[in-house]
Amino acid sequence: MTTDSAARVRVSPARLEHLVTKIFEYLKLPSDHARMVARALVDADLRGHESHGVSNYIKYIYYPGLTEGLINPAPDIRISHETPTTARWEADGAMGHVAGNMAMRDAIERARKYGSGFTTVANSRHYGMAQHYAVMALEHDMIGVSMTNSGVLATPFQGMEAKLGTNPIAVAIPAGEEPPFVLDMATTTVAWGKIMNAARDGKQMPLGWGYDTAGFPTTDPGAAMDAKLMLPLGGSKDGSAHKGYGLATWVEIFCGVLSGTGFGMQLGRDNVGHFFGAWQIEAFMPKLEFKAMMDSLLRDLKATKPAPGFDRVLVAGIPEWETMADRSANGIPLHPTVVDMLRDYAIEVGAEFDLTP
Amino acid sequence: MTTDSAARVRVSPARLEHLVTKIFEYLKLPSDHARMVARALVDADLRGHESHGVSNYIKYIYYPGLTEGLINPAPDIRISHETPTTARWEADGAMGHVAGNMAMRDAIERARKYGSGFTTVANSRHYGMAQHYAVMALEHDMIGVSMTNSGVLATPFQGMEAKLGTNPIAVAIPAGEEPPFVLDMATTTVAWGKIMNAARDGKQMPLGWGYDTAGFPTTDPGAAMDAKLMLPLGGSKDGSAHKGYGLATWVEIFCGVLSGTGFGMQLGRDNVGHFFGAWQIEAFMPKLEFKAMMDSLLRDLKATKPAPGFDRVLVAGIPEWETMADRSANGIPLHPTVVDMLRDYAIEVGAEFDLTP
Repeated sequence: MTTDSAARVRVSPARLEHLVTKIFEYLKLPSDHARMVARALVDADLRGHESHGVSNYIKYIYYPGLTEGLINPAPDIRISHETPTTARWEADGAMGHVAGNMAMRDAIERARKYGSGFTTVANSRHYGMAQHYAVMALEHDMIGVSMTNSGVLATPFQGMEAKLGTNPIAVAIPAGEEPPFVLDMATTTVAWGKIMNAARDGKQMPLGWGYDTAGFPTTDPGAAMDAKLMLPLGGSKDGSAHKGYGLATWVEIFCGVLSGTGFGMQLGRDNVGHFFGAWQIEAFMPKLEFKAMMDSLLRDLKATKPAPGFDRVLVAGIPEWETMADRSANGIPLHPTVVDMLRDYAIEVGAEFDLTP
Repeated sequence: MTTDSAARVRVSPARLEHLVTKIFEYLKLPSDHARMVARALVDADLRGHESHGVSNYIKYIYYPGLTEGLINPAPDIRISHETPTTARWEADGAMGHVAGNMAMRDAIERARKYGSGFTTVANSRHYGMAQHYAVMALEHDMIGVSMTNSGVLATPFQGMEAKLGTNPIAVAIPAGEEPPFVLDMATTTVAWGKIMNAARDGKQMPLGWGYDTAGFPTTDPGAAMDAKLMLPLGGSKDGSAHKGYGLATWVEIFCGVLSGTGFGMQLGRDNVGHFFGAWQIEAFMPKLEFKAMMDSLLRDLKATKPAPGFDRVLVAGIPEWETMADRSANGIPLHPTVVDMLRDYAIEVGAEFDLTP
């Protein structure tokens, strides 16, 4: 293990995945399920989405969920309804990463046969980083989509009650020589973690991220955390927050309603639904022609003259792509407290602790 | 015709549609094509989207386009590639409303057979209001989606060159007793018309709508109109404008690339592509169960306590639904200059002019 400038410790992605697999096997997941979870968590760390990686949710959601019965380690995951191109899956309280993997693979298989395929998942649990599932389509020369509803933290626009989650949408589209287009966005202005970080750092936050408990826009992250009234993308009437609210509702319907799971405050919001989809490129046009045009579009966008204050113009997926290249080669940088946590888990589960890159 | 408080003249939707059909027949469209266009334009007026109704584009886009050869009145609209669930359509320069109607109907028909159906349209022209096509799915108990790319007016975030259109996304989802959920949003913070209106009214506009020619956020609508650098939804770095930019790029890929049309500055941007989709509700779950849960969700959202400064919480589609109820019963309120324009057209095309509600 090497230490980077931020006192982080670089660890091997493969060894990390192996250790995390052991942790979930210890938590009574079948080996293939444990591997799906570990791969999803390490994928998030590789892409720089630490909030959905090994650092947070093992300790605060998955471990207690699996030991206290909120998450089912041995679920009967099955299709409850289907047509040639669609299926509704029943997750039976499974880890979302497991149900998500199975349902996304099913969507891809249906797309392979019929051109396009779509699945909803009912009664699942937190599935981590939305793009993990969408990008599974890329190697099949397909477009992938992934959505999930999530714990209630956001208010419908013009309101002051939390009714929706941060409800992300992810879309992954293959290119030729360019990195793929990978959009992965919460439909709130920011993720909850950005508000937590502002609070931790003692900083004001911009207006448009959240209301205080009285329903007024606030720059105080502590007030926003107390209120749990995150604002939809757009942030205000002038900013067209009705659009972010509309997107969040779309996700709520596709994941909560179209899966039959339910929505919002109806449920203990450990219970979530997902939506997955895949379209074959060749279902619309020759894939080489498509990829050449994708390269041309993405290069044209990146070549846009930067506005004052910005170094360059990006395309969705580029930051994660660059981070993944670095971390695949040089290891994933973990905070020392995360390394300590993993060492403790290794002892508890009886696994070797060696994360050397 | 009656006159409302804003000195507008209420006209019969049916008579208006009849007259507009005659105008497009005069412009050499086959009768069934002319009816599709007229129905789309009057639908926009019924729903309160006047910018996409009879007032603007007949005069400035469709009439000159059809008489000067930019739009093909007698196109050979055909499928150029297909699988059971997908098709790529070649519009041959058709009015977008005509190609859009045919391609959306095709998506619905494929969804009827296989659970879901998707179509792209290449080499089309301005198709009007995005939701017109998405809502066609509702009467079939399907979810509809509609996207189009459009004239280059928006900059990639962090940039200062127009490379994308306002690129709208529309999604229509049926409910039971509640009005359907209908999201129809430009992926820029606002539509171009809002900037024009601010300029006309001599008002400042909020930051986050557009840059000036130097690439700085501006409150001067005149400066924004000169620059043609509209900002993506989010409006700024703090507002997460990379998300609106990501959504706009998604639309550009689905409509420009996946149709084979091309994108952005490659083309005279009269040339656009569309994307349409339909999912059967019954492909996922019993439709009565779905609709009951939709009603429950939509009512729960509308019952949210309003934040200070707001009267009520809405759901996407409600404003249009209420406007449509009023205008279907009481007529469509047109500005007197629009009535004059239509009278002139009636004389030119040799049609009776009677729009009495």
